Amino acid sequence: MEKVFASIITIGDELLIGQVVDTNSSWMAQELNKMGILVRRRVAVGDVWDEIWTALDEESKKASLILITGGLGPTADDITKQLLCEYFGGKMVTHQPTLDHITRIFRKLDRPMIDRNAKQAEVPDTCTVLKNERGTAPGMLFRKDEKVFVSLPGVPHEMKWLMEHQVLPLIPQLFNTGFVEHRTLLTAGIGESFLAELIQDLEETLPAHLKLAYLPNYGMVRLRLSAFGTDKASLGTELDTYFDELKERVKAHLVIDEDIPMESAVSRLLISSGKTLATAESCTGGYIAHLLTRHAGASAYYKGSVVSYDNAVKQQILHVPETTLQTKGAVSEETVRQMAAEVRVLMGTDYSIAVSGIMGPDGGSAEKPVGLVWVAVAGAGGMLTRQFNFRYDRTRNIEMTAYQALNLLRIFIAGNPA
Amino acid sequence: MEKVFASIITIGDELLIGQVVDTNSSWMAQELNKMGILVRRRVAVGDVWDEIWTALDEESKKASLILITGGLGPTADDITKQLLCEYFGGKMVTHQPTLDHITRIFRKLDRPMIDRNAKQAEVPDTCTVLKNERGTAPGMLFRKDEKVFVSLPGVPHEMKWLMEHQVLPLIPQLFNTGFVEHRTLLTAGIGESFLAELIQDLEETLPAHLKLAYLPNYGMVRLRLSAFGTDKASLGTELDTYFDELKERVKAHLVIDEDIPMESAVSRLLISSGKTLATAESCTGGYIAHLLTRHAGASAYYKGSVVSYDNAVKQQILHVPETTLQTKGAVSEETVRQMAAEVRVLMGTDYSIAVSGIMGPDGGSAEKPVGLVWVAVAGAGGMLTRQFNFRYDRTRNIEMTAYQALNLLRIFIAGNPA
Repeated sequence: MEKVFASIITIGDELLIGQVVDTNSSWMAQELNKMGILVRRRVAVGDVWDEIWTALDEESKKASLILITGGLGPTADDITKQLLCEYFGGKMVTHQPTLDHITRIFRKLDRPMIDRNAKQAEVPDTCTVLKNERGTAPGMLFRKDEKVFVSLPGVPHEMKWLMEHQVLPLIPQLFNTGFVEHRTLLTAGIGESFLAELIQDLEETLPAHLKLAYLPNYGMVRLRLSAFGTDKASLGTELDTYFDELKERVKAHLVIDEDIPMESAVSRLLISSGKTLATAESCTGGYIAHLLTRHAGASAYYKGSVVSYDNAVKQQILHVPETTLQTKGAVSEETVRQMAAEVRVLMGTDYSIAVSGIMGPDGGSAEKPVGLVWVAVAGAGGMLTRQFNFRYDRTRNIEMTAYQALNLLRIFIAGNPA
Repeated sequence: MEKVFASIITIGDELLIGQVVDTNSSWMAQELNKMGILVRRRVAVGDVWDEIWTALDEESKKASLILITGGLGPTADDITKQLLCEYFGGKMVTHQPTLDHITRIFRKLDRPMIDRNAKQAEVPDTCTVLKNERGTAPGMLFRKDEKVFVSLPGVPHEMKWLMEHQVLPLIPQLFNTGFVEHRTLLTAGIGESFLAELIQDLEETLPAHLKLAYLPNYGMVRLRLSAFGTDKASLGTELDTYFDELKERVKAHLVIDEDIPMESAVSRLLISSGKTLATAESCTGGYIAHLLTRHAGASAYYKGSVVSYDNAVKQQILHVPETTLQTKGAVSEETVRQMAAEVRVLMGTDYSIAVSGIMGPDGGSAEKPVGLVWVAVAGAGGMLTRQFNFRYDRTRNIEMTAYQALNLLRIFIAGNPA
């Protein structure tokens, strides 16, 4: 077994001027981790010849696998391919299967193919071409001084397809990575430092080949226990023993003992009991619905949402009485109770969630400041409401509201299995 | 004027195992750019002593400003502060104003304060403390060999607050950055390489201090023209001249000549004409509503959405006839026409958008494959429908549907100012 380190180099000015958030690197890191490869560094550089060259030099000193994304587009600011050709001492040649593939794509799209497109079929003759079924820029694999370099396009779905179909399947042939395994659990309602107090002594007894990480996000904390080694069987058993103890320690705050997001923990609860859900969203503006439906299979339990952003919609579709809106306000326990009750009837579901709040930066008052949120969850067993006071920016207030509303439903279901 | 380069170092195992997407770096890069500082590299390393030390050494050779985020949490895997203390040759001392601040936070939250929390007030005596009003970990500024190092917490809203209130205001005192300005426009309906053909000769005539970048995303391409120099007045005029020419070249595909997202271009159109919008979403599951409401001020034009994920909701709330669903299907022109017409009446708006499609990975058929989407937009001037065939993964199919639906509304409004 060898300890295999990888570096991810991301190329593109758009990353350095902040135009684009790099979601590729984290996804790649996750996938490499599952294969037992540890990402040691992630580096982003611009479309600048010297910067890319230096990054290749430096990262290949620190890692055996260097994954490069971006810089393969058809426009003038993309210089990566020419650089790779010189770096690995080859010359550019047309790769006929890629040219055929590009020609087919343009024929299918019924679009004219221009020189720039055809040029994407040119590759250094020192590389192994990795066919890209999702786009026109192929992946390229190079070897130099026992290091492996893979260049992939930066478009996320093309990069992912190439990783899944071309790169990851090669890993076991390229490296002897040994065994890496993770166990992850999700907690809610307890801060990182208090969680640490609960498990400090356990953490201190962990053997060197086990590692615990705290991953806080959205007012929840994920704990990830990882094992590294050769003996899969004994390591798996040891990992499970420590993980069981960890679960026992945090059980009052445990959402789920798997590495899935809050909304998936909730959807599992609903699907396993054959129950359905509807939502009525004011301040989250459809974000809860989006969280639920971004995962395939949501139609098994989720019926829909009334996004009642405007008060008139709260009145006309969710029948919140005008007097309630006038005397208690749109952000009130009474309003979310009515919203939750009504959407549950309207969509004929077992459970419902309703939220109303002030997400900011404007719209707050002394009595009802920015960050004030009311949440109601309803079911045959009755209703549960809770007030929250978030202190973040608009984006995070929306996200926090959504996750805390889902957590409230989870708590309600646990106490009211209906 | 000096050319000031920055490096951003992001610390945390969670970045290298891919648990967290790094949104901090791109935001920081954007803000630094506006101040005339060019981010040269972004590097992510784990919570590993040697890795962090090496990154500090290497990046300070390449940049004059080194921004460090993360690694300041109260848990055991965070070693950054101790390392910074040794790296800059100081000793740890309690910073009383920070301790008072932390104590006040815990008192206000009515939570017990433990040792781990108090320890966050300890800082190297070689740093300038940057007060963090949003959390317990302060920012720290160090100087060494004429380089400036700033350490910030990794929690996004804390980092942002510190950047905006403590770090960016210091930049003009720390560096002589000169003038940097950008002009950005957004195009839709034309691919990157075809756009490049349209403007290639213009691009070739650009002087060295002007730079053009192509920023493709969601089937749209953003063009960013940047100027670097000292003479603000003449540079601004030159930038405008080239930008006007650029706009003229791409006018058939121009969405807006500002650096704002598609949904904001649409909301401006609506707000400026005093018109209102409602949406009826099946396959996007609330994502269009979320895109619109994630920006403050949406209530000026947006009334709400019926997320009719389930066909029963399409029938009962949006009155799509059962026969339509049976003979044409939920993903059909007839269905989205009815959804758009009905939600517009239901919410009493000037315009409406309706979408229905198959986002995958399951649910496709030979006749209606994954990626098939129908969009309808409606207004007093009638209705416009369009069929799309996306070929991405679920996430991207949802995003593409949302952006293309907004673009269709934009086109409809241009032709039907109602």
